[in-house]
Amino acid sequence: MEYIFEYEFEVRDYECDVQGIVNNANYQHYMEHARHRYIQTIGLDFMELTNAGVILVVAKAELQYKQPLKSNDKFVCRLNVKKEGIRYVFYEDIYRLSDNKLCTQGKFDIVSVINGRLKTSEIVDKALFGE
Amino acid sequence: MEYIFEYEFEVRDYECDVQGIVNNANYQHYMEHARHRYIQTIGLDFMELTNAGVILVVAKAELQYKQPLKSNDKFVCRLNVKKEGIRYVFYEDIYRLSDNKLCTQGKFDIVSVINGRLKTSEIVDKALFGE
Amino acid sequence: MEYIFEYEFEVRDYECDVQGIVNNANYQHYMEHARHRYIQTIGLDFMELTNAGVILVVAKAELQYKQPLKSNDKFVCRLNVKKEGIRYVFYEDIYRLSDNKLCTQGKFDIVSVINGRLKTSEIVDKALFGE
Amino acid sequence: MEYIFEYEFEVRDYECDVQGIVNNANYQHYMEHARHRYIQTIGLDFMELTNAGVILVVAKAELQYKQPLKSNDKFVCRLNVKKEGIRYVFYEDIYRLSDNKLCTQGKFDIVSVINGRLKTSEIVDKALFGE
Repeated sequence: MEYIFEYEFEVRDYECDVQGIVNNANYQHYMEHARHRYIQTIGLDFMELTNAGVILVVAKAELQYKQPLKSNDKFVCRLNVKKEGIRYVFYEDIYRLSDNKLCTQGKFDIVSVINGRLKTSEIVDKALFGE
Repeated sequence: MEYIFEYEFEVRDYECDVQGIVNNANYQHYMEHARHRYIQTIGLDFMELTNAGVILVVAKAELQYKQPLKSNDKFVCRLNVKKEGIRYVFYEDIYRLSDNKLCTQGKFDIVSVINGRLKTSEIVDKALFGE
Repeated sequence: MEYIFEYEFEVRDYECDVQGIVNNANYQHYMEHARHRYIQTIGLDFMELTNAGVILVVAKAELQYKQPLKSNDKFVCRLNVKKEGIRYVFYEDIYRLSDNKLCTQGKFDIVSVINGRLKTSEIVDKALFGE
Repeated sequence: MEYIFEYEFEVRDYECDVQGIVNNANYQHYMEHARHRYIQTIGLDFMELTNAGVILVVAKAELQYKQPLKSNDKFVCRLNVKKEGIRYVFYEDIYRLSDNKLCTQGKFDIVSVINGRLKTSEIVDKALFGE
């Protein structure tokens, strides 16, 4: 898969649970942060959009956990985004930097809610896809 | 869908993010806790299994977010579990108690790792399915 | 110490870290939730206050960790509140239910920020202390 | 105060709550991560110590919240550590990078528990203080 953006992270110990690996829910946090950093590179800001009434929400999340991340691991989240109907679908893959191992694959269907209604945002469309 | 177990929760404000709704990652936390409470009713305990070297991990997570949960919402997580190959697949649905609205649907493929190898656990099989 | 309110909780496995005990930061979450539940009993709601521009923030937090909480522990947070100058000081103690052991003691100085300025709130004063 | 180590962070949106600022509990997470990164520079590793039975726990935490951190803020945590009896006391201050504003001051009393008993660790003493 082709990636258009990547962001580096390192595991923090508090993100690991009793099994000594990053808790499954935290990968959604990593991937969310990568999305937020990405949209900033194309002129959007999550907080500004939220304050302007363009609420970007996750409609669907799919994560495949192939290799667990552990304390001290440094990793990178690489992503791409496609439009599918009214959904902005983000494909986000996490690779461990030490051996470039693919650890986690995520797919997030994002929709924008404007004035309480499901509706694509021209601002977001334009920034993401130049439409 | 038929459910075999349910567990009640209430939203805590710190689980909500700047959008004023429960952050998408936290639903994985709710659903994980419901799974752990469920297996206790059939004689299993997550910590004990972990300490005995039977590491139950999430191989895949799929969540559909239909209605957001907010501050003060009370909700119930209802679940069922099927075996698919070596995977224990948990179907977990979150309903808001005030109006019984289906808010979130989750599907989690759980696998057991024993001595570092992907392998079904007899203890878990027996408890979950009477095999 | 005399308590005016108490709220029960149970530990969730994802709140525990690699040491197998609840991560120190999570106690602040428990105690925050207890505060929010408490103020509801006296006619206040954290979200409503926030939306009305009365922002209650923690100015200072002190926690003494005496006994760690573990997976499966059920516990209760008992609290009292005093006014000290413009600060609402919450004293919150966590007791493990199984043996009533005092596990954690917290002291939180809460202040209200209205229109960006540190200022006591009449609504809050009245509800908390009948002033 | 003199600092012996510093570590940079940036705020992640999911760390912010409904008030639009980083939730008070998350500062403990930042400061914990800074401590863990610090001890690595002097030859210690939190996970290794844990696995070797030297359990470092927080006995007391005091945080003063002076300025809230918001979405997009980059900040640095600067720290120093003193020995007070059997306690390793970490002083950790968070400064916002944009204007070098002191946002949060933390003081953490860390103790080591070895074989279930409160006991200073020679390994830790030596690494921290050269004793």
